[in-house]
This record gives sequence, structure tokens and C-alpha cells, in this order.
Amino acid sequence: MIKAAVVGGSGYIGGELIRLLAMHPEVEITAVTSRRFAGKKVHKVHPNLRGLDLRFRSDYEFDADVVFLAVPHGTSMKIVEQFLGSSKIIDMSADFRLRSDLYREYYGEHLRPELIEEFVYGLPELHREEIKKAELVANPGCNATATILALYPFRDVTEEAIVDLKVSSSAGGRRENVASIHPERSHVVRVYKPFHHRHEGEVIQETGVRAMFTVHSVDIVRGILSTVYFPFEGSLRELLKRLLVYRDEPFIRLVTDKGGLQRFPDPKYVLGSNFVDIGFAYDKENSRAIVLSAIDNLIKGGSGQAIQNMNLMFGLDERTGLDYYPLYPV
Amino acid sequence: MIKAAVVGGSGYIGGELIRLLAMHPEVEITAVTSRRFAGKKVHKVHPNLRGLDLRFRSDYEFDADVVFLAVPHGTSMKIVEQFLGSSKIIDMSADFRLRSDLYREYYGEHLRPELIEEFVYGLPELHREEIKKAELVANPGCNATATILALYPFRDVTEEAIVDLKVSSSAGGRRENVASIHPERSHVVRVYKPFHHRHEGEVIQETGVRAMFTVHSVDIVRGILSTVYFPFEGSLRELLKRLLVYRDEPFIRLVTDKGGLQRFPDPKYVLGSNFVDIGFAYDKENSRAIVLSAIDNLIKGGSGQAIQNMNLMFGLDERTGLDYYPLYPV
Amino acid sequence: MIKAAVVGGSGYIGGELIRLLAMHPEVEITAVTSRRFAGKKVHKVHPNLRGLDLRFRSDYEFDADVVFLAVPHGTSMKIVEQFLGSSKIIDMSADFRLRSDLYREYYGEHLRPELIEEFVYGLPELHREEIKKAELVANPGCNATATILALYPFRDVTEEAIVDLKVSSSAGGRRENVASIHPERSHVVRVYKPFHHRHEGEVIQETGVRAMFTVHSVDIVRGILSTVYFPFEGSLRELLKRLLVYRDEPFIRLVTDKGGLQRFPDPKYVLGSNFVDIGFAYDKENSRAIVLSAIDNLIKGGSGQAIQNMNLMFGLDERTGLDYYPLYPV
Amino acid sequence: MIKAAVVGGSGYIGGELIRLLAMHPEVEITAVTSRRFAGKKVHKVHPNLRGLDLRFRSDYEFDADVVFLAVPHGTSMKIVEQFLGSSKIIDMSADFRLRSDLYREYYGEHLRPELIEEFVYGLPELHREEIKKAELVANPGCNATATILALYPFRDVTEEAIVDLKVSSSAGGRRENVASIHPERSHVVRVYKPFHHRHEGEVIQETGVRAMFTVHSVDIVRGILSTVYFPFEGSLRELLKRLLVYRDEPFIRLVTDKGGLQRFPDPKYVLGSNFVDIGFAYDKENSRAIVLSAIDNLIKGGSGQAIQNMNLMFGLDERTGLDYYPLYPV
Repeated sequence: MIKAAVVGGSGYIGGELIRLLAMHPEVEITAVTSRRFAGKKVHKVHPNLRGLDLRFRSDYEFDADVVFLAVPHGTSMKIVEQFLGSSKIIDMSADFRLRSDLYREYYGEHLRPELIEEFVYGLPELHREEIKKAELVANPGCNATATILALYPFRDVTEEAIVDLKVSSSAGGRRENVASIHPERSHVVRVYKPFHHRHEGEVIQETGVRAMFTVHSVDIVRGILSTVYFPFEGSLRELLKRLLVYRDEPFIRLVTDKGGLQRFPDPKYVLGSNFVDIGFAYDKENSRAIVLSAIDNLIKGGSGQAIQNMNLMFGLDERTGLDYYPLYPV
Repeated sequence: MIKAAVVGGSGYIGGELIRLLAMHPEVEITAVTSRRFAGKKVHKVHPNLRGLDLRFRSDYEFDADVVFLAVPHGTSMKIVEQFLGSSKIIDMSADFRLRSDLYREYYGEHLRPELIEEFVYGLPELHREEIKKAELVANPGCNATATILALYPFRDVTEEAIVDLKVSSSAGGRRENVASIHPERSHVVRVYKPFHHRHEGEVIQETGVRAMFTVHSVDIVRGILSTVYFPFEGSLRELLKRLLVYRDEPFIRLVTDKGGLQRFPDPKYVLGSNFVDIGFAYDKENSRAIVLSAIDNLIKGGSGQAIQNMNLMFGLDERTGLDYYPLYPV
Repeated sequence: MIKAAVVGGSGYIGGELIRLLAMHPEVEITAVTSRRFAGKKVHKVHPNLRGLDLRFRSDYEFDADVVFLAVPHGTSMKIVEQFLGSSKIIDMSADFRLRSDLYREYYGEHLRPELIEEFVYGLPELHREEIKKAELVANPGCNATATILALYPFRDVTEEAIVDLKVSSSAGGRRENVASIHPERSHVVRVYKPFHHRHEGEVIQETGVRAMFTVHSVDIVRGILSTVYFPFEGSLRELLKRLLVYRDEPFIRLVTDKGGLQRFPDPKYVLGSNFVDIGFAYDKENSRAIVLSAIDNLIKGGSGQAIQNMNLMFGLDERTGLDYYPLYPV
Repeated sequence: MIKAAVVGGSGYIGGELIRLLAMHPEVEITAVTSRRFAGKKVHKVHPNLRGLDLRFRSDYEFDADVVFLAVPHGTSMKIVEQFLGSSKIIDMSADFRLRSDLYREYYGEHLRPELIEEFVYGLPELHREEIKKAELVANPGCNATATILALYPFRDVTEEAIVDLKVSSSAGGRRENVASIHPERSHVVRVYKPFHHRHEGEVIQETGVRAMFTVHSVDIVRGILSTVYFPFEGSLRELLKRLLVYRDEPFIRLVTDKGGLQRFPDPKYVLGSNFVDIGFAYDKENSRAIVLSAIDNLIKGGSGQAIQNMNLMFGLDERTGLDYYPLYPV
């Protein structure tokens, strides 16, 4: 059994990680930390986990083969030192995702720039072999995961892409904020970041394409749809052909149906799973391609992907503890 | 033109009051106060009101024929002194709704108990003539409004009633609170007050029936449904006959359809209006009646009712500035 | 491996059954039938199941140790003959839930009344031992499951109970119906059955208490909350004590927290799981008890419970293939 | 008083038209037709209109100064003959919006091509003077209205634009359709038309820009957000300057706030009103502009705009019967 610790377990990413680890057949959770809720049962914060016999603690005196850092951006680089060498580390924050120049552009100064190169960017579909050997993995951002996978097969055909993202409320985290209360956040369709969303840097780093993110809030609790627009000379078939690079990926489902409810990806169809649904359309007259990518932001866009990375780092089948079909309808 | 001032204009009740007053043909808004947003345009807080040329202020040095107190419970009794005598007052808080003994039971000590009797309980359907002559009106609570109107025609047939309320998120106000953020508050069906909700006292006072409120949060932004259960020996027709007391009420619509979508009241059908839809059902075998009452909590349950009271206090037709059909579908 | 067939796999109950069976470690799905979609891949109807290599068929020439009848009410009694003797049968319709007199009262004439007694009512918490030995099981209705479990420990203290149910849209099935389209069905709080809902009969049969159902539609896709009101002389502690009869039930979670988000059951907290969350409140002054019960209507109220029954019928641990924590937040 | 008739009053556009006309101070509704519901009260279909004393009829033997055709595409061209000459006509369908070549491209053959030129395209912000003199007006499509107004001030700076639309369920009409039922249509973020949406033709006709629509369904009942992307050499200030062409438009609100909840348009902020909120952002580094446009699809995108046209055609102040502030929050 892999001994796993979750540092920062009171947010949505932390909660989902605990849930998935608790059901993982090869994992034993040895610690979940939270300063604010230390001593309390996990279900006081995550009511779905009622029945799970686990309490938050505030210290780091635990035994772990792998430590998941589910802490806010800027915090990982401060605390990571304590776990270096003794445990494998999967960082869920943004601290070690970007190479130095991009980090500076999107986030500012880094406290531990020398460590950045030690981390592998944890997107298994692109870096599987490196992840298998890694001690330190930086788990990708949710918007980045959806968009990189959509754009990667086309990285040589376009220099830039317009990326219109539609994002759920859980991606904003569990924060008190008047703009996030139900009467304000329900039924919205609203740009909250028109340009330079931080996850954009990850797409640029991984694909070389100048992705331009425009991020909209929509009225769902979970899920992301990334609609990626770029010029493409070719055909629908050539779009498909390039996407077939993902044919054997265990968590990518290509959506190629001609009709029916399910002819394009929708976060509704991947809810509760680690799947990425990728679809596409082609406008021959205008030589324009659209690639669509839908994920559950807390799973493939967060805790599921972290576990996928853990599985690879520990030599397990990548799907272990992640082989759930999405819940439908919700 | 009636000069109207809104004291405490940054909450949902305040915002709705500004909206309705701004469209009222006989009203001029002379002031809207907010400490926190003093100096800012009203639309910075209420984005629907973009285009309305009005700023928040923090002082009370305004000229007003009527002052609406849209402040939290406990605040009205502290500030009311300043407006006594110079303006008519419509208090939207709970401070002057209940007679002393019930106030104590549901809220605790009152700072100005001697003033309570000066206020008329502002439910026009029950106290129209008193309101016409009043200088001081206490605007009813939203849950109370819906329930009193459902129960009033049956106050002599039952001593107690079970009241199962389903309440929208705007009724909780504009408050930062982790339990109110979208991911937590969406898709809920949850009791938040199983017994002794404060609005219960108003029902007891106005009907004499021992109403027992159980208040549930549901996933709507606006609206309340009150389902009132009580024993009744009679028939469906006798239920209807008693409800016909409301036949000439301008804002009560009896729902008597036998079939179709609209055969029972639904807050969805009164949204954006001052209407109360009242419907009913009868279980002959078990001698059980159900009366259902649906309102828009911010209008008939708040600001619309306040304006209905204002209209009466100033000798206007009760419907002035309130004759809107509900918006459907939303 | 248990060979399982799903007869009538295109509805929501059918889809959920396929999903859960596909992930069940001891089951092999040998057939899924649908007349309308015969020949099509299962994911054309259930888009979450993309990747599952399974097609609908219309014939019954399959090999199965257990047949799940996920067909409309009235259809099971017509087709059940074909599977009698050759397979164990779990009927998801209402056809074999009620003893003859109650069936007649709530549904009318039965085509195969002689078969009714052959079926065991499939609520494991009440009939575990019988189910273990059964060849034929009638899976309970969703509203009935939630309500029976709430009321059962109090069956000797009250003769009647008011049951205010709040029900999601998936409970209405996958039917084209103008009242069910999104603009009409969103944001509703509406009674759709004020008295004599058919599931009521199951509560009467199983508890002996005259439950009076009033069923409301609310704006959630999955889940049911049953709020059960009855007179009770005692205390909060005595309420709890009676509920402790469920202490060792693997799928019942008693909600006894004093504060926090999670102090009462909410279908939001059981979504995607087979759990029943049961909570309670007591109004000493009025000697009134409330018991609250929340389930996922498609799992514990449908397919999860069917699999729980299957596990018992085949001698497996009851939790096999059902040990999922709820997804949160959704 | 203007005598107005609504032909085809049972859909959402028809219902909204009846609601707005019933509150219009200069209008008397003389007829509302529906074959299916002939003889029934209007509130049997539009439950918000309970209390309005009006019944559907199926004949066209009414007296009307203006006839609104709220019928499906293809029907207007069949029935329009009957009203020509005797009444002014405002056609809410797509039949007379596009000049012949574009009509053919987007819809196919036209039955009355000779009539197309008789109709004025009813977008007052572009064609006010022509509308004032018109007998026949073609009311624009909802997606077209939002997009044309966003793009019009930039028609000389770009030849093409990517238009990512997010659309509510009421825009799909009141149709029975399994894809539209609540469990299927809730919580979606889904492309339903990746290219060549029919409203695109209107944008091309009115702006000369090759707009490329990608239309997404989102989980709101009312409203549209159009996000328009195009290359722009300039600055944020120059974007604003061009938009100031709308400075005196009574129904366009420019959103120029720097911070706060309301810094970008959102259909949530215009709900129930005839307003168009237009905002913008500029990415200097990549020379990319975004213009955002939010409307209520049933009002400015349908019935409100039709009444705005009627007001102009009858010499009334354009705002008559349309001067409502949006309802917030809903």
C-alpha cells in the first residue's frame, strides 16, 4: 500500500483527492492537514465523506510515500522543502508548472527558481515516461489540461489560437467572496478574465502555440469546456486523423458521432470521471477548425490527474482507482 | 411626487426597492444610503440599475416624505428616532413587526418597546384601513407573508398547522458566507431551520394559529413556496369558498385550474411581480387540507409590499407602480 | 462472475444500472435490451458510457443469472413469464411491490396477482434475510425507500405522518413532455401530486403508518429529500435512540452533527452513492418530530438498491460494487 | 390606442409579446391566436399571465392596426398575404430578414421572394428612420441582434470575426424534444451548432463582416452572451471611442467599469429588460479585441425589440412600454 498524505485538505481539490484516495485500492491515507480545521472530522468540511474515519491535523509529522500539496499558489514553494527527499511530491498548486521566464510573466517572482527544473509537468499524455521516473511532479491547471490536450496535435499547423473557456464555480475554490454567493453566481455567463489568464502560460509552454484565453463563468458547479479556434487548411478527416494520436490513451475519448445528444463534448458527460472528451468541427469554406475539450475540473483537471501521476510514479496501472464512468444525468 | 429615501440600499431588498421606486410614476428618489458604498453609483452594487443616475450616500441629511428602512434586524430600532415625526416610515426589518411578548420569544430584548404599538403591521390584505392612516408601518417578513395569507381564511378551523417552506437564496441576503457560495448552495434541498424560525411569530400573531415552520433551502434565487398542512372537515369546495374572501384582492390570484402546468402555485409563476398565488388540495379520506402560497420574496415578500403600503399611506391606488405581470420563463 | 441482463436499458434507471454493473467486480453484462435503440451503442443514449463496448438488442435470447427489469409499470407483469425459473429476477417497476389490496388501490387491476406473493420487497434494511433466499425481488420506489427508512423506527409511535417530498427531475424519467423541458422545469418549486402518490402504498405496507405524501418538484436533476412530520412525546435523545437501530447498516448514515453545513441530510451530500442520510429534529414545546431522509433517487432509490439486492441474492458482500463515496460538490 | 394582434401566441416569443403588450400604455390587444389552444385562457399556457382576461382564438377575423407574426420560420411567408395592406406587420420569424441570396444560402427556397424587399430589417439602432416609415418590419434574430450591435462599430476594421455565443434554453422554443428535457438540458455547456448558424447571415448582411458563429447551450433559461473576437490595431481607448456611437441609444448601455461584479456584460444583468449591455477588452500584445454583448433573448432579442419597432412605426417614443429596469438577482 502506498502511504499518501494530503497537505491542505479543506478545499475542493483537497476534498476530491481524499475521496479518490479513500477509494483507491493501493493507497492508505496517512494524513490530511488543515490548520483551520485541525482536530475535526473530514466530513465536517466535506459532507459527502461522512463515514470516513479521518481527522484533519495541522502538523507535518506523518509518514508518507507521497505527499500531495493541495495548497494555494505561493504556498507550495514555501513548504516544499520539508518533504524533499523523504517523499515523492505531487504539487497541485501552480508553483512548479512553468519554466522560469513564463512563471515570471504570469505570476511574478519565484522564491525557489532553482527547484523548478526538478519538477516534471504532470500531464501523462505528453510526459508519461518522465513522470514514471519523477520524484517531483507539478500537476497541471484545469483550464490548461483541457486546452493543451485539444491543441497539442495541431501545434505545428498554427501559431496562435483563440481559446474560449467556460468554467464552473468549483474552479474558483472554496472562498468567501460576495461575487461567489449563490444569488450572484447563479445563471451567469460572464467573462471574468478576458486576457492573460494564468493557465495560458502552460499551454504556451507545452504546445508552443500562442493561446489566447478568454475565460467565462457559467452556471455549473463542476466542469470545463474549452473551445479552441484556429485556422486549418484541410478537412474534417484530417482533423480526426491528427486526433487519433490519442487512440490508445486510457482517459481520452474522441467524440466522433454524427448525430444525437452526444455529438460534441460536454462537461456534463464526464462528470465524476477522469475522462477528457475531445471533439471537433471544420468549416471548410473559411478554413477554420474548432476543437472542443471537456473535463471535470476537480478530477482530470485536478485530483484525478494527480492520482494518475501517482500511479505512474509508483509503477501501477495508470487507471488504478480512476476507472469510474461518469455520473449521468446530474 | 412623493419624495422617498431608502436607508440601507446595498442589500437585495434595498436594490429591489430602488428598482421599483425608480419606475414608480408618483415617486422621486431623494436619497439612497449605504455606509460601505457611499459615493459610488448605485449600479456598482446593483448591476441591473446601470443607467440610473443615483449615488449612495452615508448621511441622513435628506428630504423625504417617506423613509424606507432596509437595514438589518436590530438596526432599525437604533436609527428610527431620527426620522420620527418628519417622515412616514416603512420599516423593512423585523424590529416592529411583533408585539412585545412575541418579539421577546423570537428575537430577545427590544430597545424601544414603547414604539412597537405605534407601528401597523403592513399586510394590506389584513390591515388595509389601518395602513391608510398610519405614519409607521412594519413591513412583514417574506415567509410570514406567504404563510399568513394561506392560513388566514382557516384561522377558526385549526389550532395548529405544519408549514413546510421552500426558500430561495436571495432570502438569505447578500452576505459573504462559505455556506452561501455557489458550489455549496447550488442543487441543495436542505433544512436550515427545522423549528422556531422567526417569521413564525408573525403568523401566530396575525392568525392565532400555532404555525410550526420548517424552512428548507432550495436551488432558486428568488421565490418562496409555503406548503401549509392542517386538518379540515369539509370538501374541496369549502376550501375554495373560504379562499374567495380574497376575490377582490388586487394582488392575490387564486389558482383553481384542474389541469395543466399551472394547476398549483409556483414561485416561478409570480417572479418579478407583487402577486401571491394561492392554491389548495383536499384529501377527503384523511380530512386533510393543503394550502399553497407562492410569492416573490423580494417583491410581495419585501419591497413590492412596502410600496403597496406606501401607496395606501399616500392615498394612491394600491397598484400604482406595481402592476407588472411576472416574467416567464426565467 | 454473475451474468446480468438489463431489460429496458434506455431510461435513467436502466442507464444507471448499466453504469454500476459495468464497474461491478463480480458481474459480466450479457445483454441490454431496448426496442427503440436496438443495434445502437449504449453511449448513443447514455453519453457518459462512451467507451463501453456494448450495444442494445431487442430480443431476449440471452444467457443470464439475473435479469433486471427496468421497464415501465405494467410491462413487467407482461414479460416476467419469460424469465421465471431460468434467472433470478429483480423487477425495478412497481408491478410486484404491493400486496394485492394496496396494488388495487394505488394502481388498479393486476394481470398476474398470483405472482405478487412470490416477490420479496427489496428493501435490505427491512428484509435482508428474505432477500438472500429470494429468486424474485421487487425493487422499491424511490420516494418509498427514503420515507420508509425514515419512518420505520417510529412505526409504533404514530398512526399517521405528513410526508413532504422534494423530488428531482430524473425521477420523472426520460420522457418527452412539454412540462419537462428545461425552460418549464427549471427553477420550479411545485406540487405535482398533492395526495395519493403511488409510492405511498409502499410506506403503508412496510410501516403500517398512514403516510400522506405531498410531492414537490424542485430544481435538481438527482436526489430526493423526504421530510416526515409526526407527533412524538419524548426528546431529541429518544429520537436518536430509535434511529440507532440502523447503527450497523452499511448504507445508512445518521446525521447527528450539531453545527456546520452538514447538520441535516441533503440529497446533495449523497449524490452518486448508495447512501441514505437520515437526520432529525425535535420540537419539545409542540411534541413534534421531524425525520429527514435524503437519497440519490437513481441509486439507493433505484439501481444501487437493485445491485444491493443482487449482492444479497448471490451471497456477496452487500457493498460489492457500491462502495462509492458521493461526488461533492456537484 | 393601437390595436394589436398576436398571431401565434403560444410560444415563448408570443407569451412575452402578450405580457409586454398587456402592460403597454398605448396598446389594446384585440386578438391572440393559437390553433392548438383556441378557446383557452392565455394563462393556461403562460401561467404568469393569470388574471389577464384574454383567450386564444384560431381565426384571423380581428381588427388590428398592427399584426405581430410570432409563428415558426416558413409559416409567415404563407400567411402574411392575409394581413398585407390592412395592418402594419411585424414578423418575428426569419422569413423576411435576409435578402434573397443570403436567404437561399441559410434557409433555402423562399415562397415569396418578391416580398422580401418590402420589409425593413427591424434593428432600430441601425435602421431607425426606415422603420418609422415602414409598413412591414422583419424583427431580427436574437443571436443576430446581440452580435450585430457588438460588431457594427468595427465593420471597417476587420473582414471576419469569431463569434462564440452562449445561449439559453428559451431560445430553443417551447418544443417537446428529449434533448430539451430538464435532466438532459441542465448543467450543459455544449455546442449545438458549430458553424453556419442561420442568424449568422443577418450579421453578414448588416455589417459586411464574415461572422463565424459557434453556438453553445448553457444552463440559463433566458439570455444570450455574444463574445466577438477580431484583430484590432489600436488601444482600449479606441475601442471605446468607436462604441460611443451608441452614446444616445436608449437601450444600449456601455459597460466601462474598471472593477466590481459588473465590469463585463452578463445576460443576468439585463434580464426582463430591453437593454443591450456592451463591453470590451483589448489585448495590446496580440492586437486582439473582444467585444461582448448581452441581451434578454425574448425581449431585445424578440418581443421587446418588436415593440420598439412598433413604437417607431406609430410615432411613439421608442421607450414606451419598455422602460423597465432588469430584475436582479434572478
